[in-house]
Amino acid sequence: MTARHEEIADELRRAIDREEYTVGSRLPSESELAAAYGVSRGTVRQAVATLTSEGLIGSRQGARRVVLASRRSQSFEELRSFAQWARAMGREATGHVVAQEYRPATAEDAVRLQLAVGTQVLHVLRVRGLDGEPVLLERTVYADWISPAVESIEPDCPSVTQRLYDDTGLVFAYGEHVIDAVACGARDAELLGIRRTSPLLRVRRVTTTREGRPVEWSDDRYRPDAVSFSVRNSIGNNALARKTAE
Amino acid sequence: MTARHEEIADELRRAIDREEYTVGSRLPSESELAAAYGVSRGTVRQAVATLTSEGLIGSRQGARRVVLASRRSQSFEELRSFAQWARAMGREATGHVVAQEYRPATAEDAVRLQLAVGTQVLHVLRVRGLDGEPVLLERTVYADWISPAVESIEPDCPSVTQRLYDDTGLVFAYGEHVIDAVACGARDAELLGIRRTSPLLRVRRVTTTREGRPVEWSDDRYRPDAVSFSVRNSIGNNALARKTAE
Repeated sequence: MTARHEEIADELRRAIDREEYTVGSRLPSESELAAAYGVSRGTVRQAVATLTSEGLIGSRQGARRVVLASRRSQSFEELRSFAQWARAMGREATGHVVAQEYRPATAEDAVRLQLAVGTQVLHVLRVRGLDGEPVLLERTVYADWISPAVESIEPDCPSVTQRLYDDTGLVFAYGEHVIDAVACGARDAELLGIRRTSPLLRVRRVTTTREGRPVEWSDDRYRPDAVSFSVRNSIGNNALARKTAE
Repeated sequence: MTARHEEIADELRRAIDREEYTVGSRLPSESELAAAYGVSRGTVRQAVATLTSEGLIGSRQGARRVVLASRRSQSFEELRSFAQWARAMGREATGHVVAQEYRPATAEDAVRLQLAVGTQVLHVLRVRGLDGEPVLLERTVYADWISPAVESIEPDCPSVTQRLYDDTGLVFAYGEHVIDAVACGARDAELLGIRRTSPLLRVRRVTTTREGRPVEWSDDRYRPDAVSFSVRNSIGNNALARKTAE
């Protein structure tokens, strides 16, 4: 049985994910939260301590605490599959194949997957969900040598990456991603349950093995109200060189 | 005087940037390009050799070459200012302050800039351009200790980062970025010269000194037809740990 304070911690996490409480805003006070959830202030205090230890909320300012982070952001610090990221957030990833077919590789497929033009490659369109809600459309093209293993996976497999590892030992080791934004088309609007022309976060990526062999390339479109990406970086050692070059 | 083959190399670079030739597609043949630009095939060959050496186009497939990359992508490999990125691409960055005013720090400003609520902080709205075309709106809030130095910079300064370094020795050392997509509002549409509700690529970021002291936080909105972001990553060492945990 889940303790009441754990349930409330989870409610608060989800409210932050949904941006009911945005980063930088203040949570209601302990007594307001206690009233809202019908529990004691002690129970609220335990839930709040959990979120503080997770770095989601900060220390008290007056009667209230500030929201420091949300879990909606997918970090680019390391390459993770959608299912791995969802699991790390404590959410359930789902997947559903909408269409799957072999087609001859176009010039674009050939360049990205390092194949000859005309090689038969598997195209898969998948809807991915978080806790059952559709948030991502993946249009993936698989290299010919991995296509049969992908084709045999059941349509509702929640983690193709994990399945390919289990079945074939394949490790997705490196990713190259190009990120931009596009307007949602009619078909995508229907699949994602959102309005046409809504902004979508697009990630076009090539994933390779440890040896740098391309396995797949994909056009992924995310609902930005559900998923964002985070990146940390720092200046290179060339800051002064840059200055001298002025 | 610029040699004709350099002019043609530049025309081709811009055509790739504009996605007239998308990554993975083929360029017209040398004789088609020669006819289009009214030059000899030798001149086209020199221009093509330049782009090949830059990694923008690949080796010949039949009579034609494949486009491998565009310069529109801003890499997250290292923290770079907009002006630094533009210069690295061989393009001219412009900037123009649309509005600038001091306001008391909100709870959100206070958290992000590690200041007390109510501290006077400088808000600046800038339009940034590439070769004179507006592509980015920056809404930046500066910490109180750097605000006076920012306030005294002329409104059309092309690189605030460089200017602050020259004037105060300040180095922007670390960046944290959250990337998503939003629909363009009425005011932004007017400033960027695009249609309202067009998708924009949004980057919310905090930039700090080497010591981790926050200097600024910003809400940046990019025209995705002009700028995208690229990220390379790899799996962590925990791939097998992850597997065991299943």
